[in-house]
Amino acid sequence: MTNSKKLRNLMEKRSIVKVGGAYDALSAKLVETSGFDAVWAGSFAISATHALPDASILTMTDFLRTTENMVDACNIPVIADCDTGFGGPANVSHAVKKYEKAGIAGISIEDKVFPKQNSLLKNSKQELLSEKDFVGKIIAAKEAKKEEDFMIIARTESLIAEKGMDEALKRASAYENAGADAILIHSKKNTPNEIFEFSEKWTGRIPLVVVPTSYPSVTINELVSHKIKMVIYANQSLRAAHNIMSKILKEIIQNESLEEIKINMSNMEDIFRLQEMYKINEQEKHIEENLKKMGYIN
Amino acid sequence: MTNSKKLRNLMEKRSIVKVGGAYDALSAKLVETSGFDAVWAGSFAISATHALPDASILTMTDFLRTTENMVDACNIPVIADCDTGFGGPANVSHAVKKYEKAGIAGISIEDKVFPKQNSLLKNSKQELLSEKDFVGKIIAAKEAKKEEDFMIIARTESLIAEKGMDEALKRASAYENAGADAILIHSKKNTPNEIFEFSEKWTGRIPLVVVPTSYPSVTINELVSHKIKMVIYANQSLRAAHNIMSKILKEIIQNESLEEIKINMSNMEDIFRLQEMYKINEQEKHIEENLKKMGYIN
Amino acid sequence: MTNSKKLRNLMEKRSIVKVGGAYDALSAKLVETSGFDAVWAGSFAISATHALPDASILTMTDFLRTTENMVDACNIPVIADCDTGFGGPANVSHAVKKYEKAGIAGISIEDKVFPKQNSLLKNSKQELLSEKDFVGKIIAAKEAKKEEDFMIIARTESLIAEKGMDEALKRASAYENAGADAILIHSKKNTPNEIFEFSEKWTGRIPLVVVPTSYPSVTINELVSHKIKMVIYANQSLRAAHNIMSKILKEIIQNESLEEIKINMSNMEDIFRLQEMYKINEQEKHIEENLKKMGYIN
Amino acid sequence: MTNSKKLRNLMEKRSIVKVGGAYDALSAKLVETSGFDAVWAGSFAISATHALPDASILTMTDFLRTTENMVDACNIPVIADCDTGFGGPANVSHAVKKYEKAGIAGISIEDKVFPKQNSLLKNSKQELLSEKDFVGKIIAAKEAKKEEDFMIIARTESLIAEKGMDEALKRASAYENAGADAILIHSKKNTPNEIFEFSEKWTGRIPLVVVPTSYPSVTINELVSHKIKMVIYANQSLRAAHNIMSKILKEIIQNESLEEIKINMSNMEDIFRLQEMYKINEQEKHIEENLKKMGYIN
Repeated sequence: MTNSKKLRNLMEKRSIVKVGGAYDALSAKLVETSGFDAVWAGSFAISATHALPDASILTMTDFLRTTENMVDACNIPVIADCDTGFGGPANVSHAVKKYEKAGIAGISIEDKVFPKQNSLLKNSKQELLSEKDFVGKIIAAKEAKKEEDFMIIARTESLIAEKGMDEALKRASAYENAGADAILIHSKKNTPNEIFEFSEKWTGRIPLVVVPTSYPSVTINELVSHKIKMVIYANQSLRAAHNIMSKILKEIIQNESLEEIKINMSNMEDIFRLQEMYKINEQEKHIEENLKKMGYIN
Repeated sequence: MTNSKKLRNLMEKRSIVKVGGAYDALSAKLVETSGFDAVWAGSFAISATHALPDASILTMTDFLRTTENMVDACNIPVIADCDTGFGGPANVSHAVKKYEKAGIAGISIEDKVFPKQNSLLKNSKQELLSEKDFVGKIIAAKEAKKEEDFMIIARTESLIAEKGMDEALKRASAYENAGADAILIHSKKNTPNEIFEFSEKWTGRIPLVVVPTSYPSVTINELVSHKIKMVIYANQSLRAAHNIMSKILKEIIQNESLEEIKINMSNMEDIFRLQEMYKINEQEKHIEENLKKMGYIN
Repeated sequence: MTNSKKLRNLMEKRSIVKVGGAYDALSAKLVETSGFDAVWAGSFAISATHALPDASILTMTDFLRTTENMVDACNIPVIADCDTGFGGPANVSHAVKKYEKAGIAGISIEDKVFPKQNSLLKNSKQELLSEKDFVGKIIAAKEAKKEEDFMIIARTESLIAEKGMDEALKRASAYENAGADAILIHSKKNTPNEIFEFSEKWTGRIPLVVVPTSYPSVTINELVSHKIKMVIYANQSLRAAHNIMSKILKEIIQNESLEEIKINMSNMEDIFRLQEMYKINEQEKHIEENLKKMGYIN
Repeated sequence: MTNSKKLRNLMEKRSIVKVGGAYDALSAKLVETSGFDAVWAGSFAISATHALPDASILTMTDFLRTTENMVDACNIPVIADCDTGFGGPANVSHAVKKYEKAGIAGISIEDKVFPKQNSLLKNSKQELLSEKDFVGKIIAAKEAKKEEDFMIIARTESLIAEKGMDEALKRASAYENAGADAILIHSKKNTPNEIFEFSEKWTGRIPLVVVPTSYPSVTINELVSHKIKMVIYANQSLRAAHNIMSKILKEIIQNESLEEIKINMSNMEDIFRLQEMYKINEQEKHIEENLKKMGYIN
């Protein structure tokens, strides 16, 4: 079964699809083993691990390479954050072909102008692309995909850009008409109220997706009861890793020995298993057995 | 000043140079801000974040790309773990040219056969290359570097391969004669005793480097008093990150909301600063000021 | 239909499968439009266009990237020259997974030691890997492929290394037993005689492949009548391009204007078509039409 | 001496600097050996060899990788065609840092909107960015460069976009004021008349650069006498290679043997030399001599 099909099945079977943020193949693998339904390859987290601003600085080539690493490591579907689609409709079309071929299950594109800035950055410019031009990108994306199941998530930044609820609803509806498979409605408020208002007024048939970074108090039950079909926990893994690494590195500098450090570390074995170090040994045994049968070794 | 020169200066000025392990630009930046002298771009950690075995599976191209990201993000020198040098002398020569050009301060190459397995993997093959062939690689490395300061660290796996102290000393001495700038003496024992024995018997003029992953109880004072000139804390950052991410991802799955989670997360602002998100705003202001002076805007 | 399946079908239907050498997506596209059945992504030609020796200097990452570009540009199958398989069995296994995923129809691996040197280089070392170890690589390759049709071509360098006809036949037979899908028998002689001797003595069931670089006088009819099932014209495109570029660049330097140059150049339009520049215009029209229907434009 | 400094010296010493177009390291090397002063890494040619439209589809990552290959192969300076600068001022700034670090001598950026289309494509959109916004990009480029000698070539597409001579002159002057180091004035006319008119009316102090693809009859003497300081022969090498490869591949298909083909091919030796195959042998000898001196071999 293709990863796109897996994702579509999850959208049908689950009351809400839980997606965990990752920034490399290891964090993606941990998203999988922790019980998430899918992986979110977020542009903020991937940019951060490259120590570069989340502002369309990394290129499609860079994002795709990192995201394909995740796909190759995981059995659950990976959804890619493609920002504004890397340019105009021709760039979106090219990206869809490449991402689909890499085995990515779906992409999200957002209705800001290229180059964009992170939605939660204070004092940042949050300029929306015209509805018409973004509809053009969705048409290009839809046209480019070969597999019907490949999921195009249209993300509207209307609320981020403070254009009001009506604009958000109007755009979401236009994006559905243009062929989007889901709407990601983003908010920078510290309560889920405007998200809930949106979902109550939403009359479209395609599902809603949210990213509750700025309103962490929202519960899964609330999301489900407000018809949210997918929730993306985009960057908690990165922020926990950043936090603990800052601490342990300082402790290593300040202490006389590693043994004095009380911060938990996974042991080497845990990581060896994740990276399938022992598969090489199994493979070697398998080859040896065959070589024995063939008479090369005794 | 070049990064190689910076590293050489540190080797002169510090009683011991402290090197922190990293696997991407963000973790490298945290190594820097935590007070380390230099960054170690380790092949185990980088392989692990690609969810691939530490067994010469990732290529020079992959390692170099990741390591150059670290260099571009950091002000402190970056030392690259080049495993066995990616093949024979011609591969070592090519690698030195590419790594030096990328601004990396030095590389470590080890005397195992290509492809290698991680030194601390149980039941793994730890086959040594002949002394002669590894000396050939050091000659190739020395010949290839343009900058005298670029540091070639010869890592002997004699103790890992259980070839005995005499073999370790004989090889280290041969590597110094061939042009190595430092000796990394590696051990899988859970005490530093064999490392200390080595350092006591070592009569060479080039400095010694250790990686105390398997003997964490060793103190900085002990290392200094045993003439160890550089200590590499290769993978604690990765193991702490792996540990906390495993936990927080499970908690997200098990809890009703993000707010219930008691694991510390850095806030977005901390990461925005690391990735220099605000530099773009400063740059925009700078451009605006210029455009004002030039009369384009009021 | 997968590219591997296409290649298998050609092997059945054609008296001999004609494969043209390419080194980038443009030359691959010209191989296709000229009427070849398949593309050969050769390591000599790809190394040459990177101005690097054909001696395992470019990495799997580099070769795969270039070869995947060809696949994405072409409708005919692409066969990748994977040299010695980039290391040991674990490297071969990893390569097969990556190449198969990229849509490559098959790979060739050869029984020389890693790192290798080009087979036709004078005074070069042509050291064979032990039969046992190469059989191990074939087992690894066979095990790694997901698609039955993905083609593993085992190339023996026995004749190149001057080990004699019996060794060549013995190895080829061993490789068939290990799971190879075809045998590439290579020769540096300036007549096809030893190739013909090999094919006459060959009793295996899998097909034979040749690369007549050093014996250009051989005819297609001769190859067919000697049971050769695939012929690879590996580097003529590169050598013609190298020749004409050397000339035209010198002429540009020596002449007063471009108009004085009598060397044929394709016009811009020919290249625009190859790179599908007009598809973007078509795509734009398609989007415009949709935007009209949706009422965005008149 | 840095490559940027080499380019500046050429600008001073030569009556006109002759720049040859290349699309990979091999063609760049041929530009060098044919006697050109510098290499042009053009986006049209590089896009074409990837069989992708010249329309901002390839990313900065892709262009930089290809261009750095050229730098690593050549002793003459390489100038990179950076199209519109890959986005806004922050993208230009990032590109300048990366390109300068890679050893590229200078870049050209043009005043069209991103994503762009090739200037010579019929019926294509040639929309200019506002003068103000492009001045912003030049300021960003100038600010980002560390080396004073790194050359920022501002390319105006005013004549391509049919905005008239006055607009072209006004913009060129604004770009000089903003910090550009040279002006590339582009034309799609089939005579050099508008270029000459521009150069006669040009009162700036920075040098003029032209690309005579569409007006091939212009002579070097005419260019020199019209104060043109650099001429870029952007794509003749590609077009000659495309032409001859189309022919030879068809002939291979149509003929019975390679020997019947009358198209000139360079021999393997010529290419072996270009890719420095024999340097590996020299290096091996050097290592052997050292190993002898050290007593490892007799």
